[in-house]
Amino acid sequence: MSYLSRLENAWKIQKSFVCVGLDPHLNKLPPHLKDRKRPIFDFCKEIVDATAPFVSVFKPQIAYFSSQRSELDLEEIIAYIHEKYPQHLVILDAKRSDFEVTAEQYAAEAFDRYKADALTVVPFQGTDALRPYLERADKGIIILCKTSNQGSADFQDLIVGKGGEPLFQLIARKAVQDWNQNQNVSLVVGATFPEELKKVREIVGDMPLLVPGVGAQGGNMAESVRKGQNSKGGGLIISASRSIIYASSSEDFASAAAKVANQMKDDINQFLT
Amino acid sequence: MSYLSRLENAWKIQKSFVCVGLDPHLNKLPPHLKDRKRPIFDFCKEIVDATAPFVSVFKPQIAYFSSQRSELDLEEIIAYIHEKYPQHLVILDAKRSDFEVTAEQYAAEAFDRYKADALTVVPFQGTDALRPYLERADKGIIILCKTSNQGSADFQDLIVGKGGEPLFQLIARKAVQDWNQNQNVSLVVGATFPEELKKVREIVGDMPLLVPGVGAQGGNMAESVRKGQNSKGGGLIISASRSIIYASSSEDFASAAAKVANQMKDDINQFLT
Repeated sequence: MSYLSRLENAWKIQKSFVCVGLDPHLNKLPPHLKDRKRPIFDFCKEIVDATAPFVSVFKPQIAYFSSQRSELDLEEIIAYIHEKYPQHLVILDAKRSDFEVTAEQYAAEAFDRYKADALTVVPFQGTDALRPYLERADKGIIILCKTSNQGSADFQDLIVGKGGEPLFQLIARKAVQDWNQNQNVSLVVGATFPEELKKVREIVGDMPLLVPGVGAQGGNMAESVRKGQNSKGGGLIISASRSIIYASSSEDFASAAAKVANQMKDDINQFLT
Repeated sequence: MSYLSRLENAWKIQKSFVCVGLDPHLNKLPPHLKDRKRPIFDFCKEIVDATAPFVSVFKPQIAYFSSQRSELDLEEIIAYIHEKYPQHLVILDAKRSDFEVTAEQYAAEAFDRYKADALTVVPFQGTDALRPYLERADKGIIILCKTSNQGSADFQDLIVGKGGEPLFQLIARKAVQDWNQNQNVSLVVGATFPEELKKVREIVGDMPLLVPGVGAQGGNMAESVRKGQNSKGGGLIISASRSIIYASSSEDFASAAAKVANQMKDDINQFLT
């Protein structure tokens, strides 16, 4: 089944556009987990089990694992999700960027080693550097377009080329016209910029958009959903990390996370038309 | 000692501006290494020992390790270089890109886990996303400016802003004006684009430039050196990977690599003024 079919399937079965970002920062784990043999794996597993009923996608961020020498935890949490929740998708958030020869190795890492369903990548090095990812027709390639941080204005908002449009709009245009031949492209657009989200949606049609920034970063949920949804009343992977996984720092962290995820699911569905 | 002092020290002691890229592709290793317990580590170690006399910097590319579950090899080859060749620098080529909170984890990965002297990063997400790296005052932050691949034209050559200059020139200007307060910034400019290299050198003064693309990618060495050198007749980290490490695929691969590195060192020194 293609990435797009699997994603649409997950949205439909789960009736949820929520994506949980797995960013297990060692200093932020509930104290009672810190003496475990594998605190990062245990934390992620409990979050996954508690939130799975309310979400369609999990998005582990690789830096939280690699900074702790926890590649094995990352491999095993992804394997666990695939086995126990086969309808859910796993996005490996690694924001890879390199030229073609090396990009092949990053694609192998994400898709063959970690067995992710999708990978985030940076378009800065141009179309040829994206090719090894785009050729993986059964995998989702999620390209940075307008990121949620304030500094994204520094380059992504620059007016470029003859058309005189911001760089992020040119990226959106290329995504539709040049990069999406395998129907496996999505774009990242931060919920912190709802007008830009609206603009990207106009350009890309029904393409799925990964929308981070609704939680700790303060993006407006109602506006993001209304302006980001596609013609089918969906097309969104709305991602929150810290606001879900650190909802409580006590022994009830997993049920607290589930509560936030469930609320988020309902909020999103209510704003969809 | 600061990154810049260590780099200048390495250039001076080694009388070499050559950087060896360690890109150990499993399918390209000499056949006699393939049955070893740790073919990737053994390959890198032999390349390091053979080429160390002729070079000042080693640059492992992380994707070749992470795609093979070889993080331990990467840790150990960097530790080996630091121990046996303390005057040489290690650049971790990982081209990291994420917003501030996550960039801290990538900085921890590169500098605390792998103990690299420098890290390559992507500026696409803006100044705030670079801050966690730039704050590591004793480490080199090597920012992509004009990459060696043909597709770099897609975005890096776009005419931007009021000044009407290409994006890569704006990046070079920001590197000098905004990012280099700790004197720890370098830029990546491909040898495949000598005119752009000249332009960047005019903008950044004596800042070190990492120049890939002289080997397998076909960049012109004489032109790159002449146009890229700084006012002190240096300032260059000239990097080749495949042309050195795969100079021979037989048992003599290490001595063949040494020969190419030595020749490259002489060529560069001859073109410097």
